[in-house]
Amino acid sequence: MNGAQALIKTLADAGVEVCFSNPGTSEMHFVAALDHEPRLRAVLTLFEGVASGAADGYARMAGKPAATLLHLGCGLGNGLANLHNARKGRVPLLNIVGDHATYHVKHDAQLQSDIETVARNVSSWVRTSASTAALCEDAVQALAATLGPPGQVATLILPADVSWSEGGVPAAPPPPAPVPAADDAVLAAIAQAVRSGAPAALLLGGRALREPALLAAARIAARCGVKLLAEVFPTRIERGAGLPHVERIAYLAEFASVQLQGLRHLILVDAKAPVSFFAYPGKKSDLVPEGCEVHTLARFDQDAEASLAALAQRLGAGDAQPALQAPQRPGRPRGKLSAEKVCKAIGAMLPERAIVVDEAQTSGVLLSAFTRGAPRHDVLTLTGGAIGQGLPAAVGAAIACPDRPVLALCGDGSAMYTLQALWTMARERLDVIAVVFNNRSYAILNVELQRVGAQGSGEKARAQLDLDRPGLDFVQMSQGLGVPAVRATSAEDFVAALEHALRTRGPHLIEAVVPSAFSGLRLRLLPRLLASLGSLPPAVARAIKRKVAP
Amino acid sequence: MNGAQALIKTLADAGVEVCFSNPGTSEMHFVAALDHEPRLRAVLTLFEGVASGAADGYARMAGKPAATLLHLGCGLGNGLANLHNARKGRVPLLNIVGDHATYHVKHDAQLQSDIETVARNVSSWVRTSASTAALCEDAVQALAATLGPPGQVATLILPADVSWSEGGVPAAPPPPAPVPAADDAVLAAIAQAVRSGAPAALLLGGRALREPALLAAARIAARCGVKLLAEVFPTRIERGAGLPHVERIAYLAEFASVQLQGLRHLILVDAKAPVSFFAYPGKKSDLVPEGCEVHTLARFDQDAEASLAALAQRLGAGDAQPALQAPQRPGRPRGKLSAEKVCKAIGAMLPERAIVVDEAQTSGVLLSAFTRGAPRHDVLTLTGGAIGQGLPAAVGAAIACPDRPVLALCGDGSAMYTLQALWTMARERLDVIAVVFNNRSYAILNVELQRVGAQGSGEKARAQLDLDRPGLDFVQMSQGLGVPAVRATSAEDFVAALEHALRTRGPHLIEAVVPSAFSGLRLRLLPRLLASLGSLPPAVARAIKRKVAP
Repeated sequence: MNGAQALIKTLADAGVEVCFSNPGTSEMHFVAALDHEPRLRAVLTLFEGVASGAADGYARMAGKPAATLLHLGCGLGNGLANLHNARKGRVPLLNIVGDHATYHVKHDAQLQSDIETVARNVSSWVRTSASTAALCEDAVQALAATLGPPGQVATLILPADVSWSEGGVPAAPPPPAPVPAADDAVLAAIAQAVRSGAPAALLLGGRALREPALLAAARIAARCGVKLLAEVFPTRIERGAGLPHVERIAYLAEFASVQLQGLRHLILVDAKAPVSFFAYPGKKSDLVPEGCEVHTLARFDQDAEASLAALAQRLGAGDAQPALQAPQRPGRPRGKLSAEKVCKAIGAMLPERAIVVDEAQTSGVLLSAFTRGAPRHDVLTLTGGAIGQGLPAAVGAAIACPDRPVLALCGDGSAMYTLQALWTMARERLDVIAVVFNNRSYAILNVELQRVGAQGSGEKARAQLDLDRPGLDFVQMSQGLGVPAVRATSAEDFVAALEHALRTRGPHLIEAVVPSAFSGLRLRLLPRLLASLGSLPPAVARAIKRKVAP
Repeated sequence: MNGAQALIKTLADAGVEVCFSNPGTSEMHFVAALDHEPRLRAVLTLFEGVASGAADGYARMAGKPAATLLHLGCGLGNGLANLHNARKGRVPLLNIVGDHATYHVKHDAQLQSDIETVARNVSSWVRTSASTAALCEDAVQALAATLGPPGQVATLILPADVSWSEGGVPAAPPPPAPVPAADDAVLAAIAQAVRSGAPAALLLGGRALREPALLAAARIAARCGVKLLAEVFPTRIERGAGLPHVERIAYLAEFASVQLQGLRHLILVDAKAPVSFFAYPGKKSDLVPEGCEVHTLARFDQDAEASLAALAQRLGAGDAQPALQAPQRPGRPRGKLSAEKVCKAIGAMLPERAIVVDEAQTSGVLLSAFTRGAPRHDVLTLTGGAIGQGLPAAVGAAIACPDRPVLALCGDGSAMYTLQALWTMARERLDVIAVVFNNRSYAILNVELQRVGAQGSGEKARAQLDLDRPGLDFVQMSQGLGVPAVRATSAEDFVAALEHALRTRGPHLIEAVVPSAFSGLRLRLLPRLLASLGSLPPAVARAIKRKVAP
């Protein structure tokens, strides 16, 4: 048994079922070994950023790591942005990066580069396997690292000769790691803070946004009046009718500050304290209000669900009735299409158990409001802010959950990063509906250009933010990649296209031609828009108006 | 004057004329400052790999660096593969990578990552600028590093507050660095080796593949009988009718060994000693034959042209008549299209002063033979082996040389890495003809799978190398990106499409539907094919047959 064969057996024994790949010569023995192991499915991608994003999306839904198969330092580099998103989302993911044969490295051939250095940017565990005999033990340690807790990215660098040499020894799966809950002292201190009656909020992230933890948090909220907040970009949040509704912290720091205003206790549950996504001249990065004490109920390496259950118990809220979202859908939109109407149509039509991958940036700002009472669904978001994640993550989610419909919502700018994902959707016949909001601009950057206070920008600057000249035709690109596509310019078009896609197996793309959500709008109008549509509680909307409007 | 404004003035003063960009929020002040500096052109790309590849192609043709503008560690990651190609090609290139404001870093916001670590993989110079006052001096040092010699990639990390704060101080351009020629002892030793009469070759790379150096080398060859060889993947080689013809070392080590067989002296001129691209079980990585002495006439940091001229002088070859390639073109091909016929058509029709970016992999194997007597042209190749360079490099070459036609030849697999480059071609109305060889496979990997001796590969392995199911429609994709495109399935179609593209301004794409150059062929047939078409001297072809054929 050569190294590659032993490695693949070790992965399969440990429950790794999928490898998202973009191999080259140094990975050919791994590729050849695939036929020896029926338990490992290899999914070819046309670009490494698709492989890494798919592995991320897969793990978020499967709850266990997939492997990637990447070609040396350059292949890893191409996959880096989506590995960054996985890292920030605390998602388990194992990279297998082929390298030159150990004895070839010294010759500094064309593809030679320092792979470990690149890997360190995203990986908590990096090792170049030094021998065929040690390879599978290395792989088991890498897998253990991915599982954490918290989930992490591990990178196993596999020299070609370690892969092709005989003497591979499959290794046993890593033992499960203990995941402790909050200890008594922490519970006591937090319970005291909650009981003080001062305004308090539970900030939920990571595993705390899954049903059992959400229910425990909602019991505490119901009994003790604490507010529930979710981190701004959840790795995976379960929501919809029948589940507690949790307000996400807003992307725009101006709005987030309003959401957090007046809090005296902020209790972190598998989440970090909120900070501004970017820094802005003269504005605070740390969004925790003055005078607000930050508590940590569950660290990233702790059990969020058990910790919340224990806190609920201690607060006498174990039998409280959690507030659950009532079923509620907006009406189907009509007339000229807009980002708002796309979100409304999705709210009106979202099927049961859908997985929504949200990378719609500015165009998706109303999605949350329109889908809060839709049938129960999962939302995966852009945890690390590196665009180009939406379509690849949809590939992975669809492979993890072949019986669930997947909706990938992308901005035009972000869709162009990893559009190659469509080809893998077609090849694997995945039930993914990709909705691309084509507003012909990096709309969010038009907002950001104002927010950073950049002065005197003229035509050259604006040209850096526009995606017209020429316009992008996503229908043609999608068809060229093997995915049937239609363009919608009216709400009726969009509704019809979505209906068709929902009842027809296989992937679909809908290009939604929309005006930029912010074109012609001054930023100060946004809170009114938001408030009027109910995505924020009325009191918050009023406060935003006071704070942001002139 | 804020940091960004001073930086842009410093770049323009130093002769930097183009910035290939894909900005985000942290680069908004740099973007806003563009309108203050008419000397700096900003070229927007839809993906960072396009920006970095374009900067590479630009510098190869302009002979000076362009800047990239990238968004934090993830943007740099997306650009890494083409930066690798630039590094391996010793191409000067300046990355400007925006970062969070210095005081924001500690908050570990979503996009926070260790940028310097990623940068080190490709950059000989990396610095995070610490203050607005120091920024422009940092930039000048970065520019000096790019210029070398040898040319290098430098990465200047620009925190948002360093960019937006007032107090920027433009700095003067770096002074030119001395570029020494070979010293007397080296010249004496090499002259003695050449005069010994033992078989010798000059291996030319880098600047030694430009006209003045080529002529000096050809004079030495004419007078002393040494062989001329070019490195396997030249950064830029000037060739065609009226220039000395120099045989490139073959990609396949089996063939390269034959080219190098029997040499007793190998003289490196701005080139490294030849090594196998990959390692293969039981085969040597070092391609220098036993008993061959390796000499270095010009190191990477030396003046190749002056060193060759001095050697010619010392060998009494200063006035020798160099052998120059006679004009010669193949006839226009006819019938069903194949990769060979595409190369033949290009040989038949290549216009004066064309720039050929060759990333055609297996499909381009005969290009060199068919174009050796075409009108004088430049060829840029895949110096670092990281695919996805062809279309972006063509963007850069066309911007560096707006009066020259650019031909970008890509495999289907490699074109899919950075197809977004087409959009920038359309936006900037560049005279680029992209030829995509669509053979529906990673054909080179089918060869490599055999070469590495991977055993027992079956359907799953083969599925990792095929690009059918679904087939890629490059015509639709190209049109979707704003570039007119046609598909050619016959040689007549291809000739007509190429003629049309050559006489019509702006970008064009031709999808050449071809069988895989290796499908159905056993590897041992390749040398016969090559030999029969004259890309190798007949003696070499005979030797290959003896060595490789059964």
